[in-house]
Amino acid sequence: MQQLKDRIIREGKNLGGGILRVDSFINHQVDPALMDLCGREFARRFANVNATRVLTAEISGIAPALMAGLHMNLPVVYARKSKPITMPETVYLTTAPSHTKGRITELIVSPEYLGHGERVLIIDDFLASGETILGLVRLTRAAGATPVGVGAMIEKSFEGGRRALAHLGVPVESLVCITSMDNGEVVFGS
Amino acid sequence: MQQLKDRIIREGKNLGGGILRVDSFINHQVDPALMDLCGREFARRFANVNATRVLTAEISGIAPALMAGLHMNLPVVYARKSKPITMPETVYLTTAPSHTKGRITELIVSPEYLGHGERVLIIDDFLASGETILGLVRLTRAAGATPVGVGAMIEKSFEGGRRALAHLGVPVESLVCITSMDNGEVVFGS
Repeated sequence: MQQLKDRIIREGKNLGGGILRVDSFINHQVDPALMDLCGREFARRFANVNATRVLTAEISGIAPALMAGLHMNLPVVYARKSKPITMPETVYLTTAPSHTKGRITELIVSPEYLGHGERVLIIDDFLASGETILGLVRLTRAAGATPVGVGAMIEKSFEGGRRALAHLGVPVESLVCITSMDNGEVVFGS
Repeated sequence: MQQLKDRIIREGKNLGGGILRVDSFINHQVDPALMDLCGREFARRFANVNATRVLTAEISGIAPALMAGLHMNLPVVYARKSKPITMPETVYLTTAPSHTKGRITELIVSPEYLGHGERVLIIDDFLASGETILGLVRLTRAAGATPVGVGAMIEKSFEGGRRALAHLGVPVESLVCITSMDNGEVVFGS
């Protein structure tokens, strides 16, 4: 998606270690118009998967998932990373290592909002190693639901996430693909 | 806002202790269409404050703030509750007690995204005691910016937040006002 790519070129910062700083438009400051475009594009790409629900992980997945849900007319669920007191006692919980946080995070979903037989479209800001998305897949399956697609705004293909998701047999779509961040560069794929 | 009130009547749960569970449409599962309506309503109510930026706090402020920003054509900044490695070393940080979490939380904003002279519209899901919103006001002022309005989806007027914000001298708008949650009830004001 050209608008997103342009924005990364203009404002993204390669911090080294495969970390791309995009907090001027995605995960601290958010550009709502750009997110809206991304949501529209996810809706277009996943028009045929018959999803019944969008699933993401807090925090930075919320904005793109919300906009995808808006354009697909679907409810959005974001997995919590800690269990608020408003959540029921019994939940689905899985753990996933976070690259940028350097630790294991929990992903928690209430059984009320992820039901048996649902068709779940997973949306996140980044597809890197795929660990968070695989965590969301485990929650989906724990609920007796089926993952039907994975969408990410930015894929870092050199971290192998797409390969890690291949066994799912579902469409994996990224709006922009970065193939290398070596030597301080940001190299885009097609 | 009638649509939001209807949804609270239908799905909200009074958990006691002033806690309203709305995680089927606001803060775990999100209804994007309802959020879009709320954003549109915030845009209408704050059309004349000449805001240059929307500020909220992660996590559950993100969705309403994003939709308000979309309809006002403004960038949205969400204060982080922990400092990610992508954030600069020096930040604005304040602390605020969280009623629902029962502990002190940090609110952190990068100086890059809250500048001197900005006119800041603060949006959140709840206005209860006003502590989180006052924290966002402190961050705004630390940056040399000016708060120009406060919008919340749901006000719990019995927790005194509106009184705590009165000294700001800015419009405080809530889309739905709850005046009492005693005896398991949810009583709406006008």
